[in-house]
Amino acid sequence: MHLDIDRQRDTPIFLQIVEALERKLAGGEIRDGSRLPASRDLARDLGVNRNTVVSAYAELVARGRATAHTGRGTFLRAAAVADTPLRWHEALARGADARGIGDTLDLHSVAVQDVPFAFASNFPPEDLLPAADFGAALNEVILARGARLLTYGTAAGYPPLRQWIADEMGRRGDPVGAESVIVTTGSQQGIDLAARAILSPGDVVLMEEPGFTLAFGAFQAHGARVEGIPVDHDGIRADLLEQAVVRSRPKLLYLVPNFQNPTGVCLSATRRQEVLEIAERHAVPIVEDDSSGALRFAGTALPSLHSRDRRGQVLYLSTFSKKLLPALRVGWICVPEAIRDRLVGLKQVTDCTTSLLLQAALDAYCRSGKLEGHLRRVRAAYRERRDAMVEALASHLPAGSTWTVPDGGLLLWVTLPEGVDAKEILQEALAQGVSFNPGALFFIEPTRSPHMRLTFGGNAPGTIREGIRILGEIADRACARTLRSRPAARGEAAPLL
Amino acid sequence: MHLDIDRQRDTPIFLQIVEALERKLAGGEIRDGSRLPASRDLARDLGVNRNTVVSAYAELVARGRATAHTGRGTFLRAAAVADTPLRWHEALARGADARGIGDTLDLHSVAVQDVPFAFASNFPPEDLLPAADFGAALNEVILARGARLLTYGTAAGYPPLRQWIADEMGRRGDPVGAESVIVTTGSQQGIDLAARAILSPGDVVLMEEPGFTLAFGAFQAHGARVEGIPVDHDGIRADLLEQAVVRSRPKLLYLVPNFQNPTGVCLSATRRQEVLEIAERHAVPIVEDDSSGALRFAGTALPSLHSRDRRGQVLYLSTFSKKLLPALRVGWICVPEAIRDRLVGLKQVTDCTTSLLLQAALDAYCRSGKLEGHLRRVRAAYRERRDAMVEALASHLPAGSTWTVPDGGLLLWVTLPEGVDAKEILQEALAQGVSFNPGALFFIEPTRSPHMRLTFGGNAPGTIREGIRILGEIADRACARTLRSRPAARGEAAPLL
Repeated sequence: MHLDIDRQRDTPIFLQIVEALERKLAGGEIRDGSRLPASRDLARDLGVNRNTVVSAYAELVARGRATAHTGRGTFLRAAAVADTPLRWHEALARGADARGIGDTLDLHSVAVQDVPFAFASNFPPEDLLPAADFGAALNEVILARGARLLTYGTAAGYPPLRQWIADEMGRRGDPVGAESVIVTTGSQQGIDLAARAILSPGDVVLMEEPGFTLAFGAFQAHGARVEGIPVDHDGIRADLLEQAVVRSRPKLLYLVPNFQNPTGVCLSATRRQEVLEIAERHAVPIVEDDSSGALRFAGTALPSLHSRDRRGQVLYLSTFSKKLLPALRVGWICVPEAIRDRLVGLKQVTDCTTSLLLQAALDAYCRSGKLEGHLRRVRAAYRERRDAMVEALASHLPAGSTWTVPDGGLLLWVTLPEGVDAKEILQEALAQGVSFNPGALFFIEPTRSPHMRLTFGGNAPGTIREGIRILGEIADRACARTLRSRPAARGEAAPLL
Repeated sequence: MHLDIDRQRDTPIFLQIVEALERKLAGGEIRDGSRLPASRDLARDLGVNRNTVVSAYAELVARGRATAHTGRGTFLRAAAVADTPLRWHEALARGADARGIGDTLDLHSVAVQDVPFAFASNFPPEDLLPAADFGAALNEVILARGARLLTYGTAAGYPPLRQWIADEMGRRGDPVGAESVIVTTGSQQGIDLAARAILSPGDVVLMEEPGFTLAFGAFQAHGARVEGIPVDHDGIRADLLEQAVVRSRPKLLYLVPNFQNPTGVCLSATRRQEVLEIAERHAVPIVEDDSSGALRFAGTALPSLHSRDRRGQVLYLSTFSKKLLPALRVGWICVPEAIRDRLVGLKQVTDCTTSLLLQAALDAYCRSGKLEGHLRRVRAAYRERRDAMVEALASHLPAGSTWTVPDGGLLLWVTLPEGVDAKEILQEALAQGVSFNPGALFFIEPTRSPHMRLTFGGNAPGTIREGIRILGEIADRACARTLRSRPAARGEAAPLL
């Protein structure tokens, strides 16, 4: 028998024999079940020591590719099915941390619970979704332009919608060209595409902590190590951010400057400047997630980081999900020219293109002028609902509780008295029809946490008052159990993180 | 000045000094612009050699964190903006091969060219898209159920649609439970999610070559090395596949068993069995892409690999894009239980959920029974169009040309006489109103290639005949130039890859 043996290779001769025999078996040159030559004979044919061949045969047996029968010889075989089962836990990608992924599912499973007092979902409420108007836009697109908008679109997005988005960014003080806008399947895809373009396994990402669970998840799914930077009333702590940048040399800084999820706070004007300077000084790209920026109902809008970016290192992303319709799954990312082609290419291999039908209907809806009226309506409703929730919290939460009072968005952040674990009261709350997200979900290393994320956007004021009353009673009892003392007075609206 | 120096650490002392000074600067303990102590003084304070401090200062200067002024000393500074510009080409993810991504854009840019004879796009043609019927389904969903289906859905997909898909797979001989079906944003997302779940940078993927460009792109974007296995009339060559499996130990095997893109061939029944056995023997997961399987208009359907998978190692994916409406971006992946949660989690961090509105409308459309009628209509049309194209190829292509005659799908594969480079005739063809995809796009290492992928699905028979006549003339001239001989006779319908 002839086998290719190369004494110049680093691979030991016995392994070369194993591989050569496996190749012949795979290629059909040796039939499944054939008897191998006696080791003495093969050693002579190959000009190698007999022990080398014995080692090779032993290795084949160990690999399940041969069976040794005493006195009869060694028989090659295509490994039986049962010999090499696929072990999925070994077959999955290395490096990606599944923990974040599991948590995002926990987050969602609470959010979609159908309870009377649903304070867990960061979704625009059904009563404020413009179903009829958007249905009209869909019909206009299908009836007026028919099949042309039912086919694939280009990866970067429907050109008229990209132009509308660029113009809208201009109206908000950030003039950009339509060519820098890439339509995404919701803002989550914007986060994911940015992560894919920039992160390799082991890279460090800095972001607010508490922070957006699905961003943790996206970064960890790419094998990145996420480090959290504390947040106060003015947003991410710039001093701690710079220390972390120096210490950890991050590849990416992810920020939610407006109505941060889960705290609802905004990054102050001074902090925006500081954060940009830190990013410039240390040459760290920023992903600015402005998913809820258009939902400001109080205070003054602050310039986006992107609008102040002199050096092309800020990626800005937003979405129509929060301000219009989640079911659209249409968002966008506005990127520096240096990486635009890379992002478009990644978009294409990720899901080819975002639904052209929905993009075209959205474009028709936006150009009809109905979006501004819709936004006025929802902002007024969210303001009323925030007020109702803040009043109810003051009336019903145990003494020592604090909460944020956001100027926009759909949610706020409650801190119960020290020692209470919000996760422990969730089951009791659900049993009484109240859902919320326990704070632990928004920390990188979940521990006992006295925090709750409550969304006020999804319920009418009366529902909010009743739900918070129930939640307050549950929290009171938890406090009594935890602190072995009865609450003395009601909490205050002192935002304290 | 006190600095934390730890002689037990592996980090050299001079770098510890650098880091400590950077931390003090970042933390505000040392002001920007401060003069550093003389090296002699700091060396004494720290109990280190003076040269160690000199090295540390030099490193700070090299990092742009200090300026040395002869005779005056060394001055710390927060690096000026201009000192450390972000270099995007260094800031992007390592390992991901951008080449595949560029090619996918090339592919698409030809496909969307608006020419009279469009043989480049693998899209269902606009005249066969059920615009009115699908519009009715959308209206039904919005009017009858309103806002409930305009919000977010769950990551795994709309339960009734998952059930419909599972039932449909059962009707096609592959009974599965709805819980194993995950709705994806088109089949491309199915490929991408499978790749994300399984591949790490450097892993090997085996697939057909010529093969689906966007699959190359998706795998390469995850840093995988793609190896191509030749294809013949019966699909991927199982013998060469097993050799490659033994040689390269792939993490994933990607296959398009029905109407493979770009050749249009089907994997034969025998080969299906062989491929499954190889995958089982070597414990390699298979991703089975059946995007076009429902578009069979001749011959007999063969069982999917998934339906014969005894060991839970086949991921099956398909889509409504090819058989119904590309603009939906609704597909699905049916996965083994062992990895279902991982896939759902990845789906969630990728784009949260596929449009609930479109999923619900699709569910209404499918349950109305209209899908079967639509499929009968398009299959008949595609058959007629294939026949027209095959006849026209026989009449007009130069002698020595061959092509496949697929039993379904929208495309076929032409091989021009040896020596002709299809890419070179593309510009002339486009100038005369004919588009096609040059074969080079479907090879991992693009070289001169006499192949063309032609899609017959998108044009009426008369248009096909005229377009192929023009293309034949162009190919004739290219042959004449290339071979310096006039074509003697017409080609034959001998599928030869």
